[in-house]
Amino acid sequence: MITPDRLASLLRPRAVALIGATDKSGFSATAYRNLVDAGLGERTYLVNRRGSTAHGRAAVTSATMIGEPVDVAFLMVPQAATLDALTDAAAAGITGAVVLSAGYAEAGEAGRRAQEELVRHAQSLGMLLLGPNQLGFANFVDQIPVTAIPGLPRESGPVALLSQSGASSSAMVDFAAMTGVGLSYLVTLGNEAMVTTGHLLDYLVEDASTRAVAIFMEGVRDPDMFRRAARRAAAAGKAVVVLKAGRSELSARTAAAHTGALVGDDAVTDAVFADLGVIRVDTIEDMLLTAGTAARLGRLRRRGIGVVSISGGACDIVADRAADLGASLPELAPASHAALAQIMPGYGTVQNPLDVTGAAVIEPGIFTRAIEVMAADPAVGVVAAINTIPWRDGQLWTARDLAVAIGAGIGRASVPVVYVNQAVQPVTDYTRGLMAQAGIPHVIAGLREAVMALRNVAWWSQASQAMAGATAGAGAEAAAGPPLPVPGAAAGRGAWPETAVRRMLADAGVPVVPARLVTSAAEAERAAVDLGGLVAVKVVSPDIAHKSDAGGVALNVAAAEAGAAYRAVTAAVAVVPGARIEGALVSPMRTAGTELLVGVVRDPQWGPMLAVATGGIFVEVLQDKALAPLPVTPALARLLLERLRGAPLLRGARGGAAADLDAVAAVIARIGDLALALGDDLESLEVNPLLATPAGAEAIDAMVTWRRA
Amino acid sequence: MITPDRLASLLRPRAVALIGATDKSGFSATAYRNLVDAGLGERTYLVNRRGSTAHGRAAVTSATMIGEPVDVAFLMVPQAATLDALTDAAAAGITGAVVLSAGYAEAGEAGRRAQEELVRHAQSLGMLLLGPNQLGFANFVDQIPVTAIPGLPRESGPVALLSQSGASSSAMVDFAAMTGVGLSYLVTLGNEAMVTTGHLLDYLVEDASTRAVAIFMEGVRDPDMFRRAARRAAAAGKAVVVLKAGRSELSARTAAAHTGALVGDDAVTDAVFADLGVIRVDTIEDMLLTAGTAARLGRLRRRGIGVVSISGGACDIVADRAADLGASLPELAPASHAALAQIMPGYGTVQNPLDVTGAAVIEPGIFTRAIEVMAADPAVGVVAAINTIPWRDGQLWTARDLAVAIGAGIGRASVPVVYVNQAVQPVTDYTRGLMAQAGIPHVIAGLREAVMALRNVAWWSQASQAMAGATAGAGAEAAAGPPLPVPGAAAGRGAWPETAVRRMLADAGVPVVPARLVTSAAEAERAAVDLGGLVAVKVVSPDIAHKSDAGGVALNVAAAEAGAAYRAVTAAVAVVPGARIEGALVSPMRTAGTELLVGVVRDPQWGPMLAVATGGIFVEVLQDKALAPLPVTPALARLLLERLRGAPLLRGARGGAAADLDAVAAVIARIGDLALALGDDLESLEVNPLLATPAGAEAIDAMVTWRRA
Repeated sequence: MITPDRLASLLRPRAVALIGATDKSGFSATAYRNLVDAGLGERTYLVNRRGSTAHGRAAVTSATMIGEPVDVAFLMVPQAATLDALTDAAAAGITGAVVLSAGYAEAGEAGRRAQEELVRHAQSLGMLLLGPNQLGFANFVDQIPVTAIPGLPRESGPVALLSQSGASSSAMVDFAAMTGVGLSYLVTLGNEAMVTTGHLLDYLVEDASTRAVAIFMEGVRDPDMFRRAARRAAAAGKAVVVLKAGRSELSARTAAAHTGALVGDDAVTDAVFADLGVIRVDTIEDMLLTAGTAARLGRLRRRGIGVVSISGGACDIVADRAADLGASLPELAPASHAALAQIMPGYGTVQNPLDVTGAAVIEPGIFTRAIEVMAADPAVGVVAAINTIPWRDGQLWTARDLAVAIGAGIGRASVPVVYVNQAVQPVTDYTRGLMAQAGIPHVIAGLREAVMALRNVAWWSQASQAMAGATAGAGAEAAAGPPLPVPGAAAGRGAWPETAVRRMLADAGVPVVPARLVTSAAEAERAAVDLGGLVAVKVVSPDIAHKSDAGGVALNVAAAEAGAAYRAVTAAVAVVPGARIEGALVSPMRTAGTELLVGVVRDPQWGPMLAVATGGIFVEVLQDKALAPLPVTPALARLLLERLRGAPLLRGARGGAAADLDAVAAVIARIGDLALALGDDLESLEVNPLLATPAGAEAIDAMVTWRRA
Repeated sequence: MITPDRLASLLRPRAVALIGATDKSGFSATAYRNLVDAGLGERTYLVNRRGSTAHGRAAVTSATMIGEPVDVAFLMVPQAATLDALTDAAAAGITGAVVLSAGYAEAGEAGRRAQEELVRHAQSLGMLLLGPNQLGFANFVDQIPVTAIPGLPRESGPVALLSQSGASSSAMVDFAAMTGVGLSYLVTLGNEAMVTTGHLLDYLVEDASTRAVAIFMEGVRDPDMFRRAARRAAAAGKAVVVLKAGRSELSARTAAAHTGALVGDDAVTDAVFADLGVIRVDTIEDMLLTAGTAARLGRLRRRGIGVVSISGGACDIVADRAADLGASLPELAPASHAALAQIMPGYGTVQNPLDVTGAAVIEPGIFTRAIEVMAADPAVGVVAAINTIPWRDGQLWTARDLAVAIGAGIGRASVPVVYVNQAVQPVTDYTRGLMAQAGIPHVIAGLREAVMALRNVAWWSQASQAMAGATAGAGAEAAAGPPLPVPGAAAGRGAWPETAVRRMLADAGVPVVPARLVTSAAEAERAAVDLGGLVAVKVVSPDIAHKSDAGGVALNVAAAEAGAAYRAVTAAVAVVPGARIEGALVSPMRTAGTELLVGVVRDPQWGPMLAVATGGIFVEVLQDKALAPLPVTPALARLLLERLRGAPLLRGARGGAAADLDAVAAVIARIGDLALALGDDLESLEVNPLLATPAGAEAIDAMVTWRRA
């Protein structure tokens, strides 16, 4: 078991041994320099094969010769020497190993086997293993760097950074320091042979210094652990912000080549992260700025962003980016409008975003009061005050007065306020001095970056609030409705006959189009007359999965033609030699409504996923779909419907009648529940089409397949 | 006439007068400080009403008392004193006025009138006027700052920055300096009462120090001038990069409130900019980094980007962003693949983007050789070398060796190479020292930013290359095909009858669905029998524009029903009282093909625009359209078709037959030519639907309206 306690002794070691220390290696030199610079020279021990001097210090030939309690060994030895070095370290009482060498699972079949052996060996020694194929970690809170990454900051902050990429970590740490984000930990993960992202996330949920976690990953190695830890983080109000590479096909190829990670389908990742309250971003900058903002603001009470700016141009850019990114800039309430009209000069325009105009240069108090009023607006959960806070002397004669005025506004505001710079720039000591003087706790660098960070935090606030209310196992209990009668005995192989699927759906409370089973042309004609109007005639056979392809379906059949249609659909199955024909189903044709596809499939990493898609051209040409892992509540099903590009059709575009979205959503959720109840042997359950109408939803056709043939 | 020569004397003045100089104004103090810091104290003269001391210097009460040749007056007096100050400056022989005060066109009707008077007055004095409502300009090439913006850089560079927003300019200048973009000029434009963006662009095309122009604007004030200047810039190989706010509805509102600019429809702006080879961006950062990259690289010979990176993680991010942004990362040619396989360590993967892996830390020459091979690939027009170049000491022990290796690669590469940092960071003196040492001319900060900049420059390279080949008036000659017989006599009022439109289209060479004009039920039936199959019957009346709405159209009519249909469509027009009925058109129904809408409308700023849209659900629910200003060549029409989200339908998705795209594009271009030939009185020409089939395109219905009722 990799527990937070064991991780604590790895990440907060009393002393560190550098195994394989040598002047010839830049990695070794940097790791040693980091420890010395952090004041840990006396708690650092050098070990190498020949006991030769390294970095001006004597080394011993075995960790057992150190003679002091050491918790972590940083192994920089070649791959071939690693197992022995582990044995030696364990003999010295060392419990944590940080393994730098590459050539393991990322390097083909032989590497994968070497990695398995490495893990088995560490487990047999009772050691915790970070890596291999990584660059170590830095604990900034206690200033303990065990890493070959140079140029580490002296300060610590509220964001923990986990990275599968060692080579990019330096740039990430630097950007975090430059923009004032501030890190509590950096852990490079490498191949995650034993300690995974999920374990570290689980540890960080308990860590008092960490308020948010930024993760760069190419794939999730332990989905169950990650899922559990992410749920705990959300409930604890700690945002998890993930830059997961592998959106594009090309990138997926690159990532696979790079680390051997299993990179899943990107839409599934989006859906799973959304379900876990995990924020997904696309750039290093957005990852760190979003995490920094979430760490400082915590959960917002409302999603609306109120913007107060010295620049009309900046207002325009923010409004454009908010529209692109789906951030909410709510219209002002009448009371806010009236209060701002009192404050603003006559030529100013009262709106959100608010340009306080050049008048604020003469009278900075306008900024203070505008922030206060904006913060009090009932739709606003955070205020962004846009100006530029200098990072070096001599930049702006207006800067100090305006900073003080904005700081005063922050002091009076009833919701959090962030200071937003008009472009990306550093937070220097000069900046910090000005911030302290003005009472500005937090700055976001750049307009697009700020809109992105605030939109992300607003989304996460709602998502994580919901999860905080729920209990740990809440996911499984989200399903609603009466218990599901599952015909378990029939389960298990190949494809089910349509009659059985229809019965099961109906028993589960899913409306199904009426159908009569007929076994002769005459019966088919009688059924069509009884139903009235045009009908569909579909063959019934346990041996034909794709009825249409086999010529087993006739649509828009008049009653007089129903007999002929019966003969046609039951004869056309000659294309499936030996198929048993049990008759045909006769159903009324539906002419109104919007066709949906509702399906459940099993993702190898994340389990059963529900997909909702608009039918016809939308799914075929536009791949218009929305996904979520099961279980799915009716409320979430409704959100999925609204996310479809074809959603206007459901709301009555093109002169159609609007569908009853709540009723449709309830049916979709029920289909998901049914799929869950069918258990792990289910391969897929698909209702296609599910017809959405003003009266609700009705399954027109459906299919169930099982994993066993 | 505002000529480049006159602008040169404004932007490169021999001496400057600060009118309204006073210690009480931060603007005045900053403007004076800028001039003194630039070593121009002796060529700066102070003028104020009372002749009182300002900034520790004596002032005179009138510019005429200066007694030395002065080219520019920076007017910081209140609005009420501006006209008199202009008169006084003119009397002193000053020809250029830079007007700071606000309260003009951006401030309602009274302000608009004041601005008109200001312009008339300046014209009567023969003065060139920049502003009002702006913060001046800085000529960095000659180090002449005439601006109230503080903290200006000492260095100059190849990018001219034009900004309608004064308040955001400081942040832009700072970001440009911070990232090493380098500016030749900053001009804040304000209300552009006399000197507009187009004039300045025209000047900068001739300016040897400027290699690219970055523009922040809320609207284009003088479309003709801008268009001319932008075409000249493209032909000259100087990229124009525009951040135009006002994409969103909210932002359009903000912009209108802010400057009184006419903010047009955003899709029209996109189309016009694309036509002019103008790069449009969404953020301050992208504007400056794209302009800086274009200025340094010039036109790329090929659009493919070859990526060589020290970090696999960075490769993944770049691949993802390239997919999002539509940048081309071509697959490697076999020869490149083979050459890279020789260079790379065994466990590396040879692909683009290329991760040179940690092996390059030990053996930096791998980087050099990989760049050289990547640059030689036949699809690659630029190489991005990804690493991190430190901006302060102590960051990366690998940095210097790798920088030198990359610099060596740059020296050997056959296409331009840019150095890309893994995150946004400053270019400091420390950075510059390292760059000089390693032979690295140019750095782009940030992975997403680099992909964006290189994609933009690649697009612009192709667009501007085409324009360089064409002559100045090329636009008008782009139309192809035989001369158009335009029925000019009939032009002019309201809506044309369908029969006339059909004839005109046919005469212009646009295939039109056959139709027979009938004047009785019996004739209608005969026509239907002759045509065979189902027919459409449409009323013909000069008084009914919207036939369907008036019940004047019957579709899918069998021959036996054609007489009844004739009576119905001619009778149903009772809903348009007094309408003259001339009969009905009988046409065959078309069952195959993809419906398009092709229309020409007149944009008030930019003139006639051609819109191509997919019919049916795509245009109604998804607003799936592509625009271009006329004239449109068949080649461009084809690009417009390919840009539609419904394009897969044209290529035969959903089991349909693929349309003959070249033939369809030729018909679309012909419709555009026809609209142009109809002249400025045309309000709209719309073919809807135009049916695209394997045989080409056929107009099913069409409408022409004129501006006069």
